[in-house]
Amino acid sequence: MTPSPSIILINPQLGENIGMVARAMLNCGLTDLRIVNPRDGWPSDRANAASSGAFTSGVTPTLYTSTADATKDLHFTLATTARPRGMIKDVYTANGAMEQAHQKITEKQNVGILFGAERTGLENEDIALANAIITIPLNSEFWSLNLAQAVLLVSYEFHTQGDTTPSHQIHTGKTDIANSDTLNLFTTRMIDTLSSHDFFKSEEHRPTMERSLTNLFTRHEWTDQEIKTLHGIISAFIKK
Amino acid sequence: MTPSPSIILINPQLGENIGMVARAMLNCGLTDLRIVNPRDGWPSDRANAASSGAFTSGVTPTLYTSTADATKDLHFTLATTARPRGMIKDVYTANGAMEQAHQKITEKQNVGILFGAERTGLENEDIALANAIITIPLNSEFWSLNLAQAVLLVSYEFHTQGDTTPSHQIHTGKTDIANSDTLNLFTTRMIDTLSSHDFFKSEEHRPTMERSLTNLFTRHEWTDQEIKTLHGIISAFIKK
Repeated sequence: MTPSPSIILINPQLGENIGMVARAMLNCGLTDLRIVNPRDGWPSDRANAASSGAFTSGVTPTLYTSTADATKDLHFTLATTARPRGMIKDVYTANGAMEQAHQKITEKQNVGILFGAERTGLENEDIALANAIITIPLNSEFWSLNLAQAVLLVSYEFHTQGDTTPSHQIHTGKTDIANSDTLNLFTTRMIDTLSSHDFFKSEEHRPTMERSLTNLFTRHEWTDQEIKTLHGIISAFIKK
Repeated sequence: MTPSPSIILINPQLGENIGMVARAMLNCGLTDLRIVNPRDGWPSDRANAASSGAFTSGVTPTLYTSTADATKDLHFTLATTARPRGMIKDVYTANGAMEQAHQKITEKQNVGILFGAERTGLENEDIALANAIITIPLNSEFWSLNLAQAVLLVSYEFHTQGDTTPSHQIHTGKTDIANSDTLNLFTTRMIDTLSSHDFFKSEEHRPTMERSLTNLFTRHEWTDQEIKTLHGIISAFIKK
């Protein structure tokens, strides 16, 4: 697996949330989880239960006693906050921050992202240790995310920026996209069949109607299998 | 608020999950929640508790008894599935799908997104009713998201594509970015002060050292307030 950012939870409260964080991380291919002073202790049965197996499928949790200790091998540390803290600091969207993260990782730097406790978020002392801030752009009137959701969005931005899935594709299974010839054979057959069933009442309007009928099908994409089905529909309709 | 996609939950099981879906929607400015045959009934105290107030802050839930009924006013319906279902169908990433959604909404079309039950996902019958599929690109070896997380990622893609927050900015509070003159006055003072404290042992190397000292500061961005602090540091050091 290619290197990815470390997720660093500072004073997380609930074991469940740590487990859900691990699940969200692994959904996006992140594996290094650092936990600083979890309130309810570690290891945690509740964390394991909520992780959906993330801890046995790749996420490695490590316990730390201070933020400085948990970040000492990092070259680029980001702090997540929902609101400005009156500090002079670079602020990135999750998207902008993960663009930076990819670049730093290409330069062999270690990147980590700090997340504060559920109720209070990060302390200013922790934010001061970070090189920059991430503020996820959300509805400004209802912006409070739970911990795992915040981790998910940042991890997702990292994952999708490295992902090569085309934004649009067509699932055709074992069939292929029909070419012009296949499509034209169908529209021609349809028009001929309609003609022999007295569809065209006026010879004057016939060219316009033929054009509309052709266009009805050419403006969409069809597979060979779908054209076969369309032929089958005509055959069924005209059967005595 | 600008129009946004409807979120349609088909046979959701747990009230908690419906509440967390509402919260995730409103985090991203989505408000129209349609619920088809929730297993545990509706209204739901558990949904309200898990929503963090989303139902009283903007999300309006509506109950339906069939997918066809819940989607009948829509022009463009998307079905979320983690894996291909052997149907000939357009497949979008969450990003690609929400790009389409913005375009359709600009054309005054109603857009909705179907999400299946927690354990089983969408039935093929429901997917057949949709115009296209969304498959969120995730870690192919650990792709199972919980319901609210799936809704969050799709809603987030819709929200961020309409958002104008610059991907990078600098929070400077009441101060401004220092201009060249301010920065040069500082580096000049620093070099002069170092000179009077016998920092430059060799006149031969002095030009190179001066260049390095200047560069130490010019390659970063500073605010007026930070330059004042740096001046203060020098003043403190040289005080008898």
